Amino acid sequence: MQINRASLFAAVAICALASRPAAADEGMWTFDNFPTAQVKEAYGWSPDQAWLGKVQAAAVRLTGGCSASFVSGSGLILTNHHCVASCLFDNSKQGSDYLNDGYVADRRDAELKCPGQQAEVVTKITDVTGAVKAAMGSLSGEALTKARDAKIAQIEKDSCPDTDTNRCQVVTLFGGGQYKLYTYRKYSDVRLVWAPEDRAATFGGDPDNFNFPRYSLDASFLRAYENGKPVTTPNHLDWSPRAPKEGEITFVVGNPGSTSRLYTSSQLAFEREVRLPITVTTMSELRGRLIRGMEENPDHAREGLDMLNGVENSLKVYIGRQKALNDPAFTATLAAKEADLKEKSAGNAAIGDPWSAVDSAVTAYRSLYLPYRFVSPSSDLYGYAEALVFAAQERAKPNAERLPGYTDSALPLTKKRILDEKPVYNWLDELTLEWSLSKAREYLGVDDQDSKLLLGKESPEELAKRLVEGSKLADPAYRQKLWDGGLDAVKASDDPMIQYALKLNPRQRELKKQVDEAYVGPLAVAGGKLADARFAAYGDSLYPDATFTLRISYGQVKGWVERGNQVPIATTLGGTFDRATGSPPFDVAPAFAANKAKIDMSAAYDFVTTNDIIGGNSGSPVIDRNGTVIGAAFDGNIHSLGGNYGYDPTLNRTVVVSTASVQEALENIYPAPALVKELAAR
Amino acid sequence: MQINRASLFAAVAICALASRPAAADEGMWTFDNFPTAQVKEAYGWSPDQAWLGKVQAAAVRLTGGCSASFVSGSGLILTNHHCVASCLFDNSKQGSDYLNDGYVADRRDAELKCPGQQAEVVTKITDVTGAVKAAMGSLSGEALTKARDAKIAQIEKDSCPDTDTNRCQVVTLFGGGQYKLYTYRKYSDVRLVWAPEDRAATFGGDPDNFNFPRYSLDASFLRAYENGKPVTTPNHLDWSPRAPKEGEITFVVGNPGSTSRLYTSSQLAFEREVRLPITVTTMSELRGRLIRGMEENPDHAREGLDMLNGVENSLKVYIGRQKALNDPAFTATLAAKEADLKEKSAGNAAIGDPWSAVDSAVTAYRSLYLPYRFVSPSSDLYGYAEALVFAAQERAKPNAERLPGYTDSALPLTKKRILDEKPVYNWLDELTLEWSLSKAREYLGVDDQDSKLLLGKESPEELAKRLVEGSKLADPAYRQKLWDGGLDAVKASDDPMIQYALKLNPRQRELKKQVDEAYVGPLAVAGGKLADARFAAYGDSLYPDATFTLRISYGQVKGWVERGNQVPIATTLGGTFDRATGSPPFDVAPAFAANKAKIDMSAAYDFVTTNDIIGGNSGSPVIDRNGTVIGAAFDGNIHSLGGNYGYDPTLNRTVVVSTASVQEALENIYPAPALVKELAAR
Repeated sequence: MQINRASLFAAVAICALASRPAAADEGMWTFDNFPTAQVKEAYGWSPDQAWLGKVQAAAVRLTGGCSASFVSGSGLILTNHHCVASCLFDNSKQGSDYLNDGYVADRRDAELKCPGQQAEVVTKITDVTGAVKAAMGSLSGEALTKARDAKIAQIEKDSCPDTDTNRCQVVTLFGGGQYKLYTYRKYSDVRLVWAPEDRAATFGGDPDNFNFPRYSLDASFLRAYENGKPVTTPNHLDWSPRAPKEGEITFVVGNPGSTSRLYTSSQLAFEREVRLPITVTTMSELRGRLIRGMEENPDHAREGLDMLNGVENSLKVYIGRQKALNDPAFTATLAAKEADLKEKSAGNAAIGDPWSAVDSAVTAYRSLYLPYRFVSPSSDLYGYAEALVFAAQERAKPNAERLPGYTDSALPLTKKRILDEKPVYNWLDELTLEWSLSKAREYLGVDDQDSKLLLGKESPEELAKRLVEGSKLADPAYRQKLWDGGLDAVKASDDPMIQYALKLNPRQRELKKQVDEAYVGPLAVAGGKLADARFAAYGDSLYPDATFTLRISYGQVKGWVERGNQVPIATTLGGTFDRATGSPPFDVAPAFAANKAKIDMSAAYDFVTTNDIIGGNSGSPVIDRNGTVIGAAFDGNIHSLGGNYGYDPTLNRTVVVSTASVQEALENIYPAPALVKELAAR
Repeated sequence: MQINRASLFAAVAICALASRPAAADEGMWTFDNFPTAQVKEAYGWSPDQAWLGKVQAAAVRLTGGCSASFVSGSGLILTNHHCVASCLFDNSKQGSDYLNDGYVADRRDAELKCPGQQAEVVTKITDVTGAVKAAMGSLSGEALTKARDAKIAQIEKDSCPDTDTNRCQVVTLFGGGQYKLYTYRKYSDVRLVWAPEDRAATFGGDPDNFNFPRYSLDASFLRAYENGKPVTTPNHLDWSPRAPKEGEITFVVGNPGSTSRLYTSSQLAFEREVRLPITVTTMSELRGRLIRGMEENPDHAREGLDMLNGVENSLKVYIGRQKALNDPAFTATLAAKEADLKEKSAGNAAIGDPWSAVDSAVTAYRSLYLPYRFVSPSSDLYGYAEALVFAAQERAKPNAERLPGYTDSALPLTKKRILDEKPVYNWLDELTLEWSLSKAREYLGVDDQDSKLLLGKESPEELAKRLVEGSKLADPAYRQKLWDGGLDAVKASDDPMIQYALKLNPRQRELKKQVDEAYVGPLAVAGGKLADARFAAYGDSLYPDATFTLRISYGQVKGWVERGNQVPIATTLGGTFDRATGSPPFDVAPAFAANKAKIDMSAAYDFVTTNDIIGGNSGSPVIDRNGTVIGAAFDGNIHSLGGNYGYDPTLNRTVVVSTASVQEALENIYPAPALVKELAAR
């Protein structure tokens, strides 16, 4: 239950029925399998290869867990405010609260480095299914996962000799049906250029999150640097600061993080019966602890905001998923899909019965789940310690024998995340650690061996205090020293958090081994068979579950009917003032209030489309037929929360902040004339 | 979502498959339908009418939500520590923390009045089914509930002319199959005599709650007074301070609060899909807010403890229920029972199809549930205001037209609860009010009319602060003034909390009317039919769902097998010291540590029996074959949490604090020689 500020956004920054030929506007399509005929049939037009190539080359993945796009020739990147919130937060200190106040760099050298952030652009996609499946052969369990991971480590290393500018990543699609090598041009120096005040981006706060009509300036700009200079990006999207038109075709290009649309009924049952209840319950308690902690004083209010935003966003996603899986009508449609695939696959000996194999794997996982989840406490400092210990151990091994996050191709980003400077607030880290240790004890039970391993004779409160207050890991120089010193330095460290991570390490490795043997390995085989069954039943015009890799979804600007009322397609900037109550989170952002007379009240603000997206798509460019960007996707509506399991074209909507409103903000609210000029250049 | 400290204990102070002839040791039997033959067959012996009459006369109901028994001729009452925790808390102030330190009255006039607490003994049970059903006739919906409630108000008033010493209460059994008038001798002055330190009662805290082996001195003594003097109680149980014997027959006599064993599948689905997820999620957040708030300073730690104990106890119950209803094996047994009853009832025209009627009522309730739940915020001060407003309005009506809690028979206890002096801590009341208002907005939605009614233009934080800080309702004299002044005084009050309760009142009445019309009324009719179906199918040897009225359960002292290991029947006082880690909540209570040399380490401490109990049974005497008391039930094991829906004889256990350990405590840990003498008297 690692809850880092960054990973929260990564996991579920936004939220989208699939596997049979997709429904209208459904699908998170890979660029090498775009459904041209389907789009043409629905909209009378479909992009050609040149169009697709152009947008692919401008699409940016942010390793913090978001999507984005180049929008100028000088490395300027459009994304969401909530995707840069951690960067604003990490650059803030008492007296300069950039998250609250916003930030406009008035010159290039005032642009702020974003800790842990890296921008990546896909340059090549190569099918490596044959090589990976050959390595797996007829192996099973942990032996299979080891052979698979070794082959992947080797392919990635061989394909990207220059890890300073490139990153290679083999991605598992269709749960094991395909393996593809994605090659990225990477930019590991990403800086903040422009961000509005938090209240402008989060007007309506958690109550309005995943809702529409909406009044949120959830936009910001970053810039990619290399060797201390902005990078040149001839492949970028043209900026079109115009209002959306009802019914116009829209494309969302980005990196949906994760979906579970190909889950079998036993996997869904595990979600509904086990994982979601535990997640929602424990995270709600964390939310309560945070809310109260932030009310204690203004420093706590500032220091806790980024984490609270992440926790509340994730929690709303999980509560929405729980509601979807507790809706008998919704789950009946999922069951019908599985029944259809089973019927179409009956008698196909090559497929056999992968459903039963999944059932067995899930049954085994149920008995491993609690320790696997809880024997890894949550705290930024503990996270550093755990990663430093694993990195020191893994780096001593040959590349092909390392755990996935520590292979030669993965190490640069892992290292960056550990060593980049960012603030740690002890009270906050102690709060999360105390919470996670107390939840571990609650779910594992006091007399469980893993509880005893985690706590010894100490209470969660005492242990959290001792570890956090005694640790030097908040100091990046100390982390660098341990990284450079390797396993000897780590073992010799008297840092209590490092010693704690060393104590937990053997059990974490044992649990991973057991989970690989009983669950991950069997699922990899069954996943391949289920993918074969789908291709045999429905042809190859299918899209895989989301994997935080580049996808394109098509749709249109369109409202929906909510309890008998038509929801309009867009809001206006002026609507903010009508909705404002004066009380947080419905208080108008100070710069909106101060510039009220100048603002074009009729300018399009946020709008909705039928595009099929999910968390990870945050910041994705919303692109019109001409290939120009007209907005940045930042949310889904409340109905989209079941989208993890299936897409409903009548109700699921993507929520977008319009370029029109961003332009208005750049001109009249948070003035940035240089940016206006840069965006206008052709 | 009214969460008062008192009501939390009432609702779920402890936690128990039924409707077909009961399984071994299953059942919460009414005294007028004791299963003599069944007990005789299982144990070779069964109590006779004299035995039953004796224990019934000594059995005490505590209106705070617990059970108890007279154990001396001078009104001495045995119950649990957690049943008197609120009394200890309400009598504490800075410098005298009776909840933490315990309390031993060294003389009668040092015994402490318990606010809101009343002791009641059943003196008569009369079947009034005919009269109530005649009043309902062929009415439906709200008209039916009104006619029913009017008849009940009339019966209660006519049967108890002296409400100073008697209380009459008509109870609905089998969901509408039977209506019985219970007449009680009541004692409205209840005082605290003896209680150990909190840590002695709660050793192991929330982690050990609902677990066994257990080391908890969850016992205390109260005394009933009348006219300022202890009452004379010739009908009491003899005190037998001995160890339990494996396999010996045990009876638990008390007031199980509520079970849902007769629920149909659609009612269970509503619990699993709607009510439990909302309850667990929101209550977890409250838990988090409280934990953090209590960590702020020692005053908060003391002032929040009673509420936190209540919240954590309830939460554990609800999480256990959610887990039970998410266990396919468990729900399959419930479904099989329903299928059996339907099959046996097929073709019986007098029964018809009550299951479909319940389905329709539940469907209607689903759409009313959120406002019905949330348009009644949680706070002690708001609770006073709401009750004062309803009481003023209802008292102006004829008895038969009033809401159930405000009829002539119910008013004395309602009034006592409003007017008894007890402390209110503003920070704590503000915390709960802010939480409940923010959860209302979250679940209803920002744009919902009820959200707007609750909040107006204010935020939950601002409104909670304004209402709590501006209210004078913490002063019992002010509450008395408003009670005495009636509706005119209430309307004229400038107290913001009173004005707020007046504002919400019309909507609360409208919602109750809608719920009565669409849900309560139809369920009352269907419940009657379902009861008829059960009697027709299985005969009349059935027990009704729990209703916080007097029941008797039979069973034996017996362990169980947990993951292959036999759990012993009892712990010893010495085991406390072995289990202690030194860290809370596993730190030994100071008086245990101080008196370690004197304590008989081998004395029986807590033990388990197969008796079928649930929350409300807390404090119930555990009685041996001789009719003497050998313990006080205070908890169930973890498996008992599904007991709300069904009893599993292999796993469900009652957890009891032995009289042997209480005797040891009275002699050597919290010495009370006068009590030892009083208990020994025959």
